[in-house]
Amino acid sequence: MEKNFKLIIEYDGTDFHGWQVQANEPTIQAAIEKALTTMTRQQIRLNGAGRTDAGVHALGQAANFRCDTGLDAETLLKGLNSLLPPDIVIRECQQVAPSFHARFDAKGKVYRYTILNQTLPQAIGRQYAWHIRHALDTEAMQAALDCFVGRHDFSAFEGTGSPREHSVRTIGVAMIEWSASGRVEITIEAEGFLRYMVRNIVGTLVAVGSGDLTVPEVGAILESRDRSRAPATAPPHGLCLVAVKY
Amino acid sequence: MEKNFKLIIEYDGTDFHGWQVQANEPTIQAAIEKALTTMTRQQIRLNGAGRTDAGVHALGQAANFRCDTGLDAETLLKGLNSLLPPDIVIRECQQVAPSFHARFDAKGKVYRYTILNQTLPQAIGRQYAWHIRHALDTEAMQAALDCFVGRHDFSAFEGTGSPREHSVRTIGVAMIEWSASGRVEITIEAEGFLRYMVRNIVGTLVAVGSGDLTVPEVGAILESRDRSRAPATAPPHGLCLVAVKY
Repeated sequence: MEKNFKLIIEYDGTDFHGWQVQANEPTIQAAIEKALTTMTRQQIRLNGAGRTDAGVHALGQAANFRCDTGLDAETLLKGLNSLLPPDIVIRECQQVAPSFHARFDAKGKVYRYTILNQTLPQAIGRQYAWHIRHALDTEAMQAALDCFVGRHDFSAFEGTGSPREHSVRTIGVAMIEWSASGRVEITIEAEGFLRYMVRNIVGTLVAVGSGDLTVPEVGAILESRDRSRAPATAPPHGLCLVAVKY
Repeated sequence: MEKNFKLIIEYDGTDFHGWQVQANEPTIQAAIEKALTTMTRQQIRLNGAGRTDAGVHALGQAANFRCDTGLDAETLLKGLNSLLPPDIVIRECQQVAPSFHARFDAKGKVYRYTILNQTLPQAIGRQYAWHIRHALDTEAMQAALDCFVGRHDFSAFEGTGSPREHSVRTIGVAMIEWSASGRVEITIEAEGFLRYMVRNIVGTLVAVGSGDLTVPEVGAILESRDRSRAPATAPPHGLCLVAVKY
C-alpha cells in the first residue's frame, strides 16, 4: 500500500550545491533520495517545500515522498539518519494523509539571516554568518526592514530568470535582533518567497546600515520593481530556512 | 631591533592535525609561521602556550614570536588575518617584553568541552560538540567532576607516552552547565594540563552520567594512578581552549 511520509530536515549547506537534484553536483535532495532508495529499493522522488540555494542552511526544511513500503516512520527516521552524511539530519518523519504535498500545502516559511558585525571575523562558526567589519546602524536597518512588511510586488528583490507566475508576496513578520557581541539576526516570515528574495532584502538592509542608502530610498526601490536598483545580494552562508508552516 | 610579539588566536581545528608543526600535515602553527614568513621574509618560530591535538578548537590560544622587523603589532594583525585561511583568526597582536614566553609564562589555561545530549545529532555546529544520544545524569557528572578539583597526581587521566616531568596538576575551577536543549558544557581551569587530560576526564564524566561508573569509583581511579582503569577518551571535536592566563 502506498504511504505518504513527511520529513523535517536540518542541514549544513556548506558542502552542497543547494537542495535540488543537479547532474554531477552534490545536493541535499539527491543525498536523501539515495538513502531512501537504499532503504526501500525503489526510486523515490522527494518533494521539498522550498529550493534552498547553494550554501544555504536549514534547521526545518520540510519534504514529502510517497512509497509502497512496509517500513514505518520511526524505522525510516533511524535508517535515514544512519545512512545520511553528518551534515544532513532528519529531525522528524511521520506518515501523513495521501494528499499532503510539502510544497503546495505550505502556508508559510521562516528564514533567518545571521550577520556577525565586529571588526574581526570568527573562525568557529564562520560557516553560519556573514561577517561585516564596519559598524552597522541596526536602528536604521530595522526601519528599512519595516518597509517590506505586508503585501508587495517584490520584483526589485527577485533573482533574475526566476520561474514564477507573479512577483507579489506577503511578508507577515520581519524582525531584526542584535546583541552586544555583534550578532545581528534578521528573521522574515512570509507565505512564499521569490528566488534570492531574503538575500536581496538583507543586502539592501546592509546598504542602509552602512549609510549607503536611506530608508525612503528603500521604499522607492521596492515601488520601482526594478531589480537593477537594489543593492548586491547577501552571500548564502548567513541564510537558514528555520521552519515551514502548514 | 628584535621585537617580541604575543598573539591571541582563534581556530577551528576541524581540518588541522593539531597545533604543532608536523611534516606533511596541515597544522595551525605551520600556517601562522608561513604567514609570518611571508610578511617578514624571515624564518619565524612560534611558541604556542599549549599544543592542542588534532581536531581540538581554540577561542584563545596564546603564542609569541621574536622577530627583527619594522612592522608594528597592528600591521602584523591585519596582515596575518588577510594571509591566513578562514579557519584561523588572530584576535590580538601586541608587542611584549623581550623575556615573555607564551608557554613558560602561562599561569593557567581554561578548556571547555561541549556535549550535545539529545536523541538526534545536529547538522549545524556538529563540528563543535560531542553528540551523546542517551540521557546523561548531569547531577552525577557534577559530583564526579568535583573529585578532580585541587592538586592530584593525574597519571590515570594522562595520554600514554606523554613527555612530562611528573603528573601532578592542580585544577582550580571545574564546572558543568547544562540547558534544557541538551547542551552540556564542562569548563576546567588549571595551571597546566597533561596530554588528553581534559578529554579523559570528560570520558569519565560521561561514564558516570551514563550509569557505568559511580562517583566513589572515579575517586578510586584517580588515586590508583592507573591509566588502564579510566574510561575511554572523549573525541577531540568537543574540546576548545578558551583562554590562557598570564
